[in-house]
Amino acid sequence: MYAPSEPVTVAVLGATGTVGRRLVDRIAAHPWFRLIEVAASERSAGRTLAETRGGAEGLDPRIAELRMTSAAGPFEAALVLSSLPRAAAEEIEPKLVEAGKLVVSNASAGRMRPGVPLVVPEINPGHLELISPEGTPAAGLVTNPNCAVVPLAMALAPLHEAFGVDAVIATTFQAVSGAGLPGPGSITMIDNVLPRIAGEEDKIVVEPRKLLGALDGGDVVLADFAVSATSTRVPVLHGHMVDVAVRLRESVPLARALEAMRDWRGRVADLDLPALPERPLRVTLDPDRPQPRLDRDLDDGMAVTVGRVRECPVFDLRFTVLAHNLERGAAGAAVANAELAVRTGRVRAGA
Amino acid sequence: MYAPSEPVTVAVLGATGTVGRRLVDRIAAHPWFRLIEVAASERSAGRTLAETRGGAEGLDPRIAELRMTSAAGPFEAALVLSSLPRAAAEEIEPKLVEAGKLVVSNASAGRMRPGVPLVVPEINPGHLELISPEGTPAAGLVTNPNCAVVPLAMALAPLHEAFGVDAVIATTFQAVSGAGLPGPGSITMIDNVLPRIAGEEDKIVVEPRKLLGALDGGDVVLADFAVSATSTRVPVLHGHMVDVAVRLRESVPLARALEAMRDWRGRVADLDLPALPERPLRVTLDPDRPQPRLDRDLDDGMAVTVGRVRECPVFDLRFTVLAHNLERGAAGAAVANAELAVRTGRVRAGA
Amino acid sequence: MYAPSEPVTVAVLGATGTVGRRLVDRIAAHPWFRLIEVAASERSAGRTLAETRGGAEGLDPRIAELRMTSAAGPFEAALVLSSLPRAAAEEIEPKLVEAGKLVVSNASAGRMRPGVPLVVPEINPGHLELISPEGTPAAGLVTNPNCAVVPLAMALAPLHEAFGVDAVIATTFQAVSGAGLPGPGSITMIDNVLPRIAGEEDKIVVEPRKLLGALDGGDVVLADFAVSATSTRVPVLHGHMVDVAVRLRESVPLARALEAMRDWRGRVADLDLPALPERPLRVTLDPDRPQPRLDRDLDDGMAVTVGRVRECPVFDLRFTVLAHNLERGAAGAAVANAELAVRTGRVRAGA
Amino acid sequence: MYAPSEPVTVAVLGATGTVGRRLVDRIAAHPWFRLIEVAASERSAGRTLAETRGGAEGLDPRIAELRMTSAAGPFEAALVLSSLPRAAAEEIEPKLVEAGKLVVSNASAGRMRPGVPLVVPEINPGHLELISPEGTPAAGLVTNPNCAVVPLAMALAPLHEAFGVDAVIATTFQAVSGAGLPGPGSITMIDNVLPRIAGEEDKIVVEPRKLLGALDGGDVVLADFAVSATSTRVPVLHGHMVDVAVRLRESVPLARALEAMRDWRGRVADLDLPALPERPLRVTLDPDRPQPRLDRDLDDGMAVTVGRVRECPVFDLRFTVLAHNLERGAAGAAVANAELAVRTGRVRAGA
Repeated sequence: MYAPSEPVTVAVLGATGTVGRRLVDRIAAHPWFRLIEVAASERSAGRTLAETRGGAEGLDPRIAELRMTSAAGPFEAALVLSSLPRAAAEEIEPKLVEAGKLVVSNASAGRMRPGVPLVVPEINPGHLELISPEGTPAAGLVTNPNCAVVPLAMALAPLHEAFGVDAVIATTFQAVSGAGLPGPGSITMIDNVLPRIAGEEDKIVVEPRKLLGALDGGDVVLADFAVSATSTRVPVLHGHMVDVAVRLRESVPLARALEAMRDWRGRVADLDLPALPERPLRVTLDPDRPQPRLDRDLDDGMAVTVGRVRECPVFDLRFTVLAHNLERGAAGAAVANAELAVRTGRVRAGA
Repeated sequence: MYAPSEPVTVAVLGATGTVGRRLVDRIAAHPWFRLIEVAASERSAGRTLAETRGGAEGLDPRIAELRMTSAAGPFEAALVLSSLPRAAAEEIEPKLVEAGKLVVSNASAGRMRPGVPLVVPEINPGHLELISPEGTPAAGLVTNPNCAVVPLAMALAPLHEAFGVDAVIATTFQAVSGAGLPGPGSITMIDNVLPRIAGEEDKIVVEPRKLLGALDGGDVVLADFAVSATSTRVPVLHGHMVDVAVRLRESVPLARALEAMRDWRGRVADLDLPALPERPLRVTLDPDRPQPRLDRDLDDGMAVTVGRVRECPVFDLRFTVLAHNLERGAAGAAVANAELAVRTGRVRAGA
Repeated sequence: MYAPSEPVTVAVLGATGTVGRRLVDRIAAHPWFRLIEVAASERSAGRTLAETRGGAEGLDPRIAELRMTSAAGPFEAALVLSSLPRAAAEEIEPKLVEAGKLVVSNASAGRMRPGVPLVVPEINPGHLELISPEGTPAAGLVTNPNCAVVPLAMALAPLHEAFGVDAVIATTFQAVSGAGLPGPGSITMIDNVLPRIAGEEDKIVVEPRKLLGALDGGDVVLADFAVSATSTRVPVLHGHMVDVAVRLRESVPLARALEAMRDWRGRVADLDLPALPERPLRVTLDPDRPQPRLDRDLDDGMAVTVGRVRECPVFDLRFTVLAHNLERGAAGAAVANAELAVRTGRVRAGA
Repeated sequence: MYAPSEPVTVAVLGATGTVGRRLVDRIAAHPWFRLIEVAASERSAGRTLAETRGGAEGLDPRIAELRMTSAAGPFEAALVLSSLPRAAAEEIEPKLVEAGKLVVSNASAGRMRPGVPLVVPEINPGHLELISPEGTPAAGLVTNPNCAVVPLAMALAPLHEAFGVDAVIATTFQAVSGAGLPGPGSITMIDNVLPRIAGEEDKIVVEPRKLLGALDGGDVVLADFAVSATSTRVPVLHGHMVDVAVRLRESVPLARALEAMRDWRGRVADLDLPALPERPLRVTLDPDRPQPRLDRDLDDGMAVTVGRVRECPVFDLRFTVLAHNLERGAAGAAVANAELAVRTGRVRAGA
């Protein structure tokens, strides 16, 4: 297990967006990393981090004066964390990889691309083999899933590992901060729910299958289950909640399913990754939880809360799962992947 | 087809609650009915309607001075409309029936009781046979379904009639006015969603099956499909939205399912019931509809809007359906049932 | 009193914005007017009204197919109603006046311009003399005040007429629809209040003084009182509420002030302008009113509700006043001014 | 300056309410105090703290098993902190004082009672002389102001000290958590503002005058300025915001007023009270601050933020000030008063 003897240098791309700001703050406070470069769109180029935030309040003085550069690079940092918009990511991230960088990205652009690992450390850390064998520094792109996929996949993982998931019908309740800035107008969201989030359902249908899929040569074979998803937007600030019905390969008593979820520690429990909580999945028996406002901040926004686990009259199981969309679902997810890359020796300090 | 030659006299029970107020207003403005008695809990007894509302504003002067009596009766009115709380309904409604009244109730108490018709006019008007043959005035209890069941059952009805429904997985987004007064506190609902509404899911699982069931002697045989439901509360004022996945007995192309929904006029199209819109089910192709705030008031709150009808990767169909919970889902539902009872000769003016 | 024998033709500029849509709908349903031209920004040019709304639903078929032209004209219509953004209004409206049009504008650009009447019919109909003597058709610009000024000025008018206003300290609670589209993001407004609306307070400080000012030759002498204003944005959809403390020239008992407000009918009560309610100012004694959601829609959104009228320990009077910002505060205000222009013979059918 | 050598024992009354819970949590985490007794209404008597919260989650194990006793006592603790409802406080608190206790109360009952100090440590610590000379342990009642008064008085204090306040016109925007449980229903608060909070304005008019008043023998002479207040409820979870216009005895340039506010450290800066931030009043120059959601949590909810300080066209100054109503405005206020009592030797460990 590799531990960085000196800080790993990091560049953050898309540093002024909703997720990018959280990336910056997480890296600035991180025990292993040092933020040395920030990049954003043309509009922000040349401005300091403090200026883009309208002031240095709450900013570590060592980073407040970093100036926004072009996202196209070049970068000195050993590690690039990206929360670029899809189109920019599609253009820029591959070039940075070609230039020898390890790019850990929250963008959707590369997630389903063959050869690109889509990773949640607790679920499928082994998929990093796609970029290099453990212990071998590598250039490459590592992605984390869509912010609504995270809670869904985290709840499915222990069930899939133990019993096999056969089919999933999911309905999301997504917070407004998941839409980035400016996001949905208040004139739309007051006293209302939006029954669709454009482009979201396609991701929910396929990304969990890649996360739970098996490595096969240079790519991942999707896990063999179907997912049906409806994505909605609710007037909640942070916290994506997903209502899920699951059919298992093997019907099991409710108690065993609950036990599988409760006992699950994920596949990196021994790696002590700083961003990850001891228990990735908190199972609550309170029938009125999870609730976005009450549960999203648990463990610095990195714990996933599942509740209302019960038998389903149509499938096997039904439950509700929640995660903070900006933390566990985006910035924290990328940082955890970066930590995993460091811990498994795919990035080194001073690289 | 019976048309009342003079107004049918009506008593409203539970007249001060969220639903009761709407019953009063609907009856006051109704072409066939005359409100002559109002009743509520002990606390309100003796007060005039105007006093219980803190003023006569918006009240028809002919009813503003009606005084609240005890819900236990006796009543002169030919027809009793009830929105009593469950416990009160359980005790009082049967006594009123024994006393010879036709009681049309929004309470949940009697809905699943053997011999009691649970009716939505467009879906199962024939179930009124349980109280008397068409044209025969009767004492009896007629109920309408739970406010979240209404949109679900309305969307299922044309599918069940045409192809047979085999299984349903539903997730509701219910408005706060559905909880009655005082309802959930704002300290609970701001920036939040509640993942459960106690007692609600049991109703959603069974009431659609009675509505779509078949008369068999003195009772209804439940329709043979399973329903799984999650009920949630969202920070919306009015309008219950339901996200639905349906497996049909017979797989059909999307276009045929859409057609069945679009062409459906229900079973009372020729009765000209004043509360009912010409098209009970509006099918929208706008992918971002229905939305509670934009669609709940259509046709005086009595139209049900279904949208996002699409193929489901797991079942056959997926869609989102919305109805105004206080109108189509409660007060309007009861008034429509009262109209149906009048039109089919089960109540007569001057009875 | 002139009554149009045939419809007065109308063009609406800025027809796709929040206010413009309401202008279109009001003109389409108006007994005196016929909408024949619609204009909007370049982006919408060439599209039909129906297309700009994503469908013809709710649109009068006679106007659904009107195509958006350039706001620069030329226009055939006798009357131009404008809700252009400030910069566009500043450029375009004077040219239309030069081209001989009567332009009734909701834009802020011309309101304080010398020679331009700023009018609320009930308050200062005589200021139309600035464009032409009664009965004389004219080219010219007529403006209505800012949407937060309307309720304030309506409440001050009877007090100023009866006792003289000496000083005003006001705090507004403004709805999100007052910001136009897209308006403040939901990520800003959920669980929050914004303590400032940029640019708004300057208008509140001066526009009431022009409305209540006196004609003097070719311009208006501002009424001689000081106004201090704080404008805030609250998570309310529609309805601007203003909390007001007033010092009068002459101290009067509370009862007399209340009477002055209650008895006030404004200066056009005998003109029967279709947009205006019989009582422009509703005074409520309910200590918990006005409330935006409960009171904004009174009289089609054109009544102003004032409540909590009480003695002020520091000044003379304190009260809270509310008006629908899109109706009484914008679209309805412009339509009422257009009606006034027609009724006083400043525009004629077939002009 | 007295420093407790061992923990001062504390009883919390009203421990299950919105404020009481915060008192319990603050005392449990406090360096000087040890919570040994909790009391609440009859309904909770005999239940453990954990049971009243539906679980021990987040509770210090040493207090989770404390059982609710009657608020009437007797209590062993040296210090009693009370957040009883008004009526209960009126009856019980004087008896506890008679029994020799120092009672620090958030209840409104005793605030304006002659001989009872109403205290904010930074503003008027000397008013504790009303219960005993510094250094002398005492039985007595110490109160803190209403939650909306706190931000107002904190902003007025430096102005009054430097220039003399002559008149105040204030409008509050109060959060729903200020109403306690259950508080206003969501059906009331969605898309709405309430123009009045019953009983609140009377407190705002008089409490700042006692806080800023002068000790004179056995009582306080109210400061000689008039206050006019409107209290409103807005759909915000926490954080009371107050918009203020102030007339000073002595007109001063804006810069001097700003300086007075910015430099103000209050009268207990040298006492190092743990609950109090170094700067009690943060003055922001950002024209769009304070905002409830962004500013309420500063310094653990104990900092007061004032912004929009500007010249007033009618009075001298206008500004907006915000404080967390449950922390600085209630629980934190009481704890700070308890700290002040300990620090000034009015309570001793082991008393």
